[in-house]
Amino acid sequence: MKKFLNSVDTVLTESLDGFAAAHVDILVLGEEHKFIRRRELKPGKVALISGGGSGHEPLHGGLVGHGMLDAACPGQVFTSPTPDQMLAAVGAVDTGAGCLFIVKNYEGDVMNFDMAAEMADGVQQVVTNDDVAVENSSYTTGRRGVAGTLVVEKIVGAAAEQGMALPELKALGDRVNAATRSMGVALTSGTVPAAGKPTFEIGDGEMEFGVGIHGEPGRRRDTLRSADAIAEEVCAAIAGDFGDRVKGPALLFVNGFGGTPSMELYLMYNSARRMFEKRGVTVIRSLVGSYVTSLDMAGCSITLTMLGDGMTALWDAPVHTAALRWGM
Amino acid sequence: MKKFLNSVDTVLTESLDGFAAAHVDILVLGEEHKFIRRRELKPGKVALISGGGSGHEPLHGGLVGHGMLDAACPGQVFTSPTPDQMLAAVGAVDTGAGCLFIVKNYEGDVMNFDMAAEMADGVQQVVTNDDVAVENSSYTTGRRGVAGTLVVEKIVGAAAEQGMALPELKALGDRVNAATRSMGVALTSGTVPAAGKPTFEIGDGEMEFGVGIHGEPGRRRDTLRSADAIAEEVCAAIAGDFGDRVKGPALLFVNGFGGTPSMELYLMYNSARRMFEKRGVTVIRSLVGSYVTSLDMAGCSITLTMLGDGMTALWDAPVHTAALRWGM
Repeated sequence: MKKFLNSVDTVLTESLDGFAAAHVDILVLGEEHKFIRRRELKPGKVALISGGGSGHEPLHGGLVGHGMLDAACPGQVFTSPTPDQMLAAVGAVDTGAGCLFIVKNYEGDVMNFDMAAEMADGVQQVVTNDDVAVENSSYTTGRRGVAGTLVVEKIVGAAAEQGMALPELKALGDRVNAATRSMGVALTSGTVPAAGKPTFEIGDGEMEFGVGIHGEPGRRRDTLRSADAIAEEVCAAIAGDFGDRVKGPALLFVNGFGGTPSMELYLMYNSARRMFEKRGVTVIRSLVGSYVTSLDMAGCSITLTMLGDGMTALWDAPVHTAALRWGM
Repeated sequence: MKKFLNSVDTVLTESLDGFAAAHVDILVLGEEHKFIRRRELKPGKVALISGGGSGHEPLHGGLVGHGMLDAACPGQVFTSPTPDQMLAAVGAVDTGAGCLFIVKNYEGDVMNFDMAAEMADGVQQVVTNDDVAVENSSYTTGRRGVAGTLVVEKIVGAAAEQGMALPELKALGDRVNAATRSMGVALTSGTVPAAGKPTFEIGDGEMEFGVGIHGEPGRRRDTLRSADAIAEEVCAAIAGDFGDRVKGPALLFVNGFGGTPSMELYLMYNSARRMFEKRGVTVIRSLVGSYVTSLDMAGCSITLTMLGDGMTALWDAPVHTAALRWGM
């Protein structure tokens, strides 16, 4: 295992300490590293709380701040946070207007966020499941929540910042999730620090098609293909799943898994954009970068959100987080 | 070689096409991919132009925009851009107030930017050489220009945006460069697409200490050490080189080389910050991310800029580029 670390037991806490120190203007680390919260709370605003296993940085802690999340609960690497983390976060950021949990669809996450929601008052939840690769998976009943979760958090976060009430935010989150589809491919496996070796074996000439963000299997193992061939298959899967809805303005998000550099991501963006546009999509907003990672896995995912219902203006609204920032 | 590409001959142009399409609000791609220029020029402003071999993205194209560069000239991977690229960029962005070239100290870059500067009127140059690892190197007489170049581009870019004249910008650039020191370590080698195999061999338990951003050798090959031990040695080298000047407010920039994820970079930031602070540095500004990369190399560099002379306000000034954005 080749990683920058001092001890596998303290990777997460040391990284969180560094993260909080680097972004002291934006956020505060909760006691015992239970959560990261926005430094300046906005009384009367519905609090948005997300979280999940660590190893996907900058999701979710890097999305805490004005216009996005009020708090994020980091679990151990690829392990759900515990309900007491979510409850501590609720206690820290709920200013009386209620909380919305944004939860990626994995069994552990759903169970633990559910438990916290039952114990707290005035909480609603949006569960994201944007990954079209497989219907059920290693840790999932139904589809997995992956990079599209960032899009849900940005759009719902902007609406919350503008004063939208909890039931409408919940409905908006469900709508954005339903307008979003993703699929990923892996060229290498990431390595969980505590395991010390790659999560899965993969040959020099192989790729995992439809991989999950924990390295869980996708649709199939295949020989490594050209960027255009990969983009064509991923975009066809996404477009096919949308059916007739894949027409008109969209956000195209090409996401790196941690070990793939920006040069390759923009090349994939170039391929994916052509594949979608020939199907009638008009890409009017773009995001390219490593935002929903799988430790040091090489690979990328492609996410398309069909932008309806004022979503574009909410995407464009000011945001000030460690990983996404514009308009302020 | 495991990369997203269609053909090694078109990696660069396809990536640039994707980049320009994704950031159409900020920039324009010049004819024949000779340069990337800022979309909205500001008449009367000194034009800042940088460039160098590709493979270091987002440097420099990702730093084109309001408050930073007016143009960037991308060479082939790890190959200097040609003088006609710089001349085309001058022709496209010089609005009459002159141009400042910001050039990393590599022999090919220096020679080609020099040639262009002689052929154009009203051009001055800042050559960055922030890497303390080695005095001369594979492609360099004197020290290499590495991640500190971004700091020079940000601070000089803000001053240019505010209307500073060419001679003062040149002096400011030299001052920021002189206030900046960097050093890097590699855990793996990157792979140049046209070569198809890693630039250098490195064992499972080894690291390259003081590596250059093209994978060129540093101070020595060593066994992989803890994050704290690495940070201690890098920070000691940087602090030692600063001598008495390493006291007071500073910018700490931990830069990923392309294959290292954010979790590890923040852990290294946490270590480096402690190492500098115990020496009397006060970290008042921070940047953590993969900004000056070496293709898919795993590793990171640490950069420290001692903030004097109004540099903090210039660092904080609004910027709107693909890779750095705040205040607008």
